Amino acid sequence: MAIEMARGVRDFPPEEKIIRQEVVSKLTNVFERYGFSPLETPAIERMEILSAKFAAGETSDVQKEIFQLTDQGGRKLGLRFDLTVPLARFLAMNPNLKMPFKRYEIGRTYRDGPIKLGRYREFWQCDVDVVGCKTMIAEAELMKLSLDVFRELNLDAYLEINNRKLLNGILDYAGIAVEKRPESIIIVDKLKKIGIEEVKKELVAAEIADKSIERLMEIFGIQGESNNILKELKSKIQSPAGIEGITELEELFSFFNEEELKNIKLNISLARGLSYYTGPVFEGFLRDSKITGSICGGGRYDNLIKSYLESEKEYPSTGISFGLEPITEALKLTRKEVRKSVAQLYIVPIKTLKESLNIAQQLRNSGLKVDIDLLGRGVSKNLDYADRLGIPFCVIIGQTELDNKLANVKNMKSGVEEKVPFDKLKEYNFKL
Amino acid sequence: MAIEMARGVRDFPPEEKIIRQEVVSKLTNVFERYGFSPLETPAIERMEILSAKFAAGETSDVQKEIFQLTDQGGRKLGLRFDLTVPLARFLAMNPNLKMPFKRYEIGRTYRDGPIKLGRYREFWQCDVDVVGCKTMIAEAELMKLSLDVFRELNLDAYLEINNRKLLNGILDYAGIAVEKRPESIIIVDKLKKIGIEEVKKELVAAEIADKSIERLMEIFGIQGESNNILKELKSKIQSPAGIEGITELEELFSFFNEEELKNIKLNISLARGLSYYTGPVFEGFLRDSKITGSICGGGRYDNLIKSYLESEKEYPSTGISFGLEPITEALKLTRKEVRKSVAQLYIVPIKTLKESLNIAQQLRNSGLKVDIDLLGRGVSKNLDYADRLGIPFCVIIGQTELDNKLANVKNMKSGVEEKVPFDKLKEYNFKL
Repeated sequence: MAIEMARGVRDFPPEEKIIRQEVVSKLTNVFERYGFSPLETPAIERMEILSAKFAAGETSDVQKEIFQLTDQGGRKLGLRFDLTVPLARFLAMNPNLKMPFKRYEIGRTYRDGPIKLGRYREFWQCDVDVVGCKTMIAEAELMKLSLDVFRELNLDAYLEINNRKLLNGILDYAGIAVEKRPESIIIVDKLKKIGIEEVKKELVAAEIADKSIERLMEIFGIQGESNNILKELKSKIQSPAGIEGITELEELFSFFNEEELKNIKLNISLARGLSYYTGPVFEGFLRDSKITGSICGGGRYDNLIKSYLESEKEYPSTGISFGLEPITEALKLTRKEVRKSVAQLYIVPIKTLKESLNIAQQLRNSGLKVDIDLLGRGVSKNLDYADRLGIPFCVIIGQTELDNKLANVKNMKSGVEEKVPFDKLKEYNFKL
Repeated sequence: MAIEMARGVRDFPPEEKIIRQEVVSKLTNVFERYGFSPLETPAIERMEILSAKFAAGETSDVQKEIFQLTDQGGRKLGLRFDLTVPLARFLAMNPNLKMPFKRYEIGRTYRDGPIKLGRYREFWQCDVDVVGCKTMIAEAELMKLSLDVFRELNLDAYLEINNRKLLNGILDYAGIAVEKRPESIIIVDKLKKIGIEEVKKELVAAEIADKSIERLMEIFGIQGESNNILKELKSKIQSPAGIEGITELEELFSFFNEEELKNIKLNISLARGLSYYTGPVFEGFLRDSKITGSICGGGRYDNLIKSYLESEKEYPSTGISFGLEPITEALKLTRKEVRKSVAQLYIVPIKTLKESLNIAQQLRNSGLKVDIDLLGRGVSKNLDYADRLGIPFCVIIGQTELDNKLANVKNMKSGVEEKVPFDKLKEYNFKL
């Protein structure tokens, strides 16, 4: 038998899962501090739910990548490709939920797409959404939450923000016809990545009129602080959508203090591909990092759930999704040691197994993460084992140590050994 | 569109997920205190891996219940039905792992089986395994870990233990033919559930000789403390397998102190269905609970991985799996209040939104879980919202409160209100 994995899925051995778990735990902490509560939905949904039409009235690309299966009853099922569809289905099945409904869900999602660098067929999404709030305070809370996530994870990161209404106002200003708009938005969205000259070329290729391109270039040429950009836009953008977008952005900016504003940038070309966004959109990026893609992103999608559910009820919604992969990669870059074990210390008994087990038990009761030799190996093999797993301390306990009630504590990095009384072990600084 | 879920899967709304998450978090803590490190494997595996023959040389029942799918490349894939097969596959693909390999994995598994009470098509397993240790110390660690899990979760629970070698010795003693053994073991395993008379009937129905049944009844009639049972068995059981089983049990019991032994019972009819167990088997049960089924279970499976991988290499293994469902149900029985939110307090601004947001921010920075009105509702609607979500405290902040820097803290259960200075809020006991 060939021992192989499915394509596009991964194992996370302890050295990677430990960091992933740290990220998930910190995300969870911040989400809950903002009053978001956990929801768990199944990974399997009916195909009818997964393939329902989206707000735009069309099926999206991700829907072509659904892993399909059937159950014993012959029902057509599929694996979820995001956490928003299950949220919509959950809302529909629970019409009496108190609004606003603030939930987070951290879980696996699946897409049977082509495998590219950094794209996988099984991947985690970490979503936080507010359902049932029309005003900018929901976005303000999500953005503050994001800044807290960056701080909690020690990431030097910032948020870019825009508003789809403003973007529509800019297209109004440029006089771009309705049928050219989806394409134009996708081109404009690339501005940061490919630069203004390339964007110009693509707009020409898309047969946007010269006059329109000129006006777009005029708008996207505006430089300066977020406040100044908004001021200048106000003097140009006149359509109702555009004015509303500017007002929302001004309101949103008013929620932040000077310190927070250092990490919030207006980027008026930001669109976030998906067609379902209706208001503010935002993305997070690392400063001075090898990881240049976004680490989180989201926005307002007031019509998505309603239209998806073909419902009369309004579900004004806004949310943000954190990328477990790029954040974990960013964290790995800051870590020198590779730890293949969660243990803080490893006990090496020298013919003192039962006594050593008792000591292990006491230390565990005090909350320490303690591993112990299970194979009765010699000292040097044990030290080698602990070293290879990256366990920072060994505690050697032989007969002499038992007699004197003094453990021999070895710092595996420095090599320094220290005698520590048994009853002081649990207070010892087994710092990782 | 009919809004329906797949059959046999579930949503866990916040009121349930909060408790599930508490269980997972406590399991994780205990697992890590024992030096087990996390491993994450994908939910999708190749069918070839999932349908490989097991130790017994036959495919098992669960393999008939695999959810099957194909990827775009036409590869045959399936959803994992347990966490042991992915572990075996991971071991095979990582031949240089340092032994012993101590890992835990907590994740979803899938079985497309009939839906019965308490059986689902998507369910979580919480597995802890030691690979690479032949001796009873691995079992001793796993059993101590289980007792710690019970304590950590405040569950009045105990472990039952047996040894498959002893069970074989008992069948030797009863003179039961090899071909009748698998069936006999399954019948005997039911002793606790259906009683000795029913077991007798089923043995008769299975055409076990009267003489053999008599000898089985003699053995299973032995009463008393674990020590005494073992002593009496020693005088009867003579086959090498049986003697080895008794010796292993004696060794295992020697690792525990009197306090621990109060929660460990020898049950010599315990078999744990699965054919792959080779040594000690154990199961955990609640005392005086509506939940009568096991809450955890495991045992030694020295041949499983080796034979599964058709490998030359030995993988002596032992492990235990905790049932997230029964444990969560048990915990729910002890909780009076239903909490639909993780928030410890809910801020009700009365025309003080921005100042209240600042206060929320400070409290969040101090680690508190804080929700705040996003809809600008009146006080009574807000109190009702917090009450329905089960948030224990409301903090009301109007202009008077701002002027005096005194928040109005309302205990939602007792109804008592208290004035608390803003700068003392973060030390206030917002106890759930």
